[in-house]
Amino acid sequence: MESLTLLKVGGKIVEEPDSLVRFLDDFAKIDGQKVLVHGGGRSATKMAERLGVETQMVNGRRITSAEMLQVVTMVYGGLVNKNVVVQLQSRGVDALGLTGADMNYMLADKRKNAEIDYGFVGDVKKVDGEKLKSLICQNIVPVLAPLTHDGQGNLLNTNADTIAGEAAKALAKLYDVTLVFCFEKKGVLRDENDDDSVIPTINKQDFDRYVESGVIQGGMIPKLQNAFNALEAGVKQVIITKADEINKNSGTTIIL
Amino acid sequence: MESLTLLKVGGKIVEEPDSLVRFLDDFAKIDGQKVLVHGGGRSATKMAERLGVETQMVNGRRITSAEMLQVVTMVYGGLVNKNVVVQLQSRGVDALGLTGADMNYMLADKRKNAEIDYGFVGDVKKVDGEKLKSLICQNIVPVLAPLTHDGQGNLLNTNADTIAGEAAKALAKLYDVTLVFCFEKKGVLRDENDDDSVIPTINKQDFDRYVESGVIQGGMIPKLQNAFNALEAGVKQVIITKADEINKNSGTTIIL
Repeated sequence: MESLTLLKVGGKIVEEPDSLVRFLDDFAKIDGQKVLVHGGGRSATKMAERLGVETQMVNGRRITSAEMLQVVTMVYGGLVNKNVVVQLQSRGVDALGLTGADMNYMLADKRKNAEIDYGFVGDVKKVDGEKLKSLICQNIVPVLAPLTHDGQGNLLNTNADTIAGEAAKALAKLYDVTLVFCFEKKGVLRDENDDDSVIPTINKQDFDRYVESGVIQGGMIPKLQNAFNALEAGVKQVIITKADEINKNSGTTIIL
Repeated sequence: MESLTLLKVGGKIVEEPDSLVRFLDDFAKIDGQKVLVHGGGRSATKMAERLGVETQMVNGRRITSAEMLQVVTMVYGGLVNKNVVVQLQSRGVDALGLTGADMNYMLADKRKNAEIDYGFVGDVKKVDGEKLKSLICQNIVPVLAPLTHDGQGNLLNTNADTIAGEAAKALAKLYDVTLVFCFEKKGVLRDENDDDSVIPTINKQDFDRYVESGVIQGGMIPKLQNAFNALEAGVKQVIITKADEINKNSGTTIIL
């Protein structure tokens, strides 16, 4: 099978012009077939504030009212996605922005939760890897926004890490997939105040131990759970690294 | 050559939930290969107002400051485009939303005008009909937002009628194209206060005469100029009709 790099960028990187430019320079240099997944939560929160739409988070997840869905549709599907696409095109990367509704490539169910109504939030149900492949075969680089749909006319807000993990799993049937989660830190840190305390390799056992001892916590937990799910579903390797080191073989490698 | 319908919907239709639903029901019923182009100016103006961004129009064209470009990127590329795409998917139409930057299908130059600085407004330079065809061949229905790009990392605001005309011209090399402009009126009206005064056919001579006598004026003039340009470039026919009559063989047919 051919190899493919699926890279997820989130956090501050994609929302600050300077770091975005540096990141896209690096992303453009990655050889071979590739897919980019982006977040945009900070921009959504800022835009919601400007529009007087209240942001409510529960366990790091955004409660998505109908009004907030409009905000994230504008920000993720429009502002962030198109800004990334247009800048990749200027670097000779033939990018194409997609939500899950575009080409119907990622279907989700509206989250059902007895305790919390998350609103228009999607849990991924089906990913059409062949549709993505039909683009990739034409040397197109899909740029995936963190939005899915329910097939019934509703977009659904979906965590970008989840989008990356699910897309990687679907593509793992068609490619040797390396899934890269990159953000502002150099990798999974042993001490969150020490940027150089990167843990080079984490397996499932290590993970359970680190969570128990509190070394790994907060938003890193679902990120790593996604990574293990992806590996169990056939993804070749998962790397967590700093955005400006994606071409440097550094960061934390996750194995089963 | 196979036939293809390229339909442009604008004005109130696409921005009001009820009329949008009716329109998409009708659009889904159009047989054969098709492309949809949408506007969204009213939504952009409303969103700009909510965000405190001033809207400035000159000759019906929006002056597009950097801030206004963000608004139209969000509204055209995100809110309106994805809303149309997700609702088409729920009707079994395999829609894919595109700006000119996506797949680099439509390049433009930033408008140069000695008298007025239009800001980030694009004049179309190059349309890649083959890229659109590669999608259409897979039974995908491209949904085109009124945004182009300059190949240097900038999105450009571009009139939706222009997008429709330019896409139709490029596709006319590959398909027998019927270009349909649909909006809230039944066609080109002899008397703008009489909805039933539709002019069934207009040729170039009629057009010049109608403009001179003031029967055709305002926003209808560039719309018809686009139509004649398209016909001269090989588009088979251009129809201007009411949105809810697109399957009824009514409206005004434009011929050379």
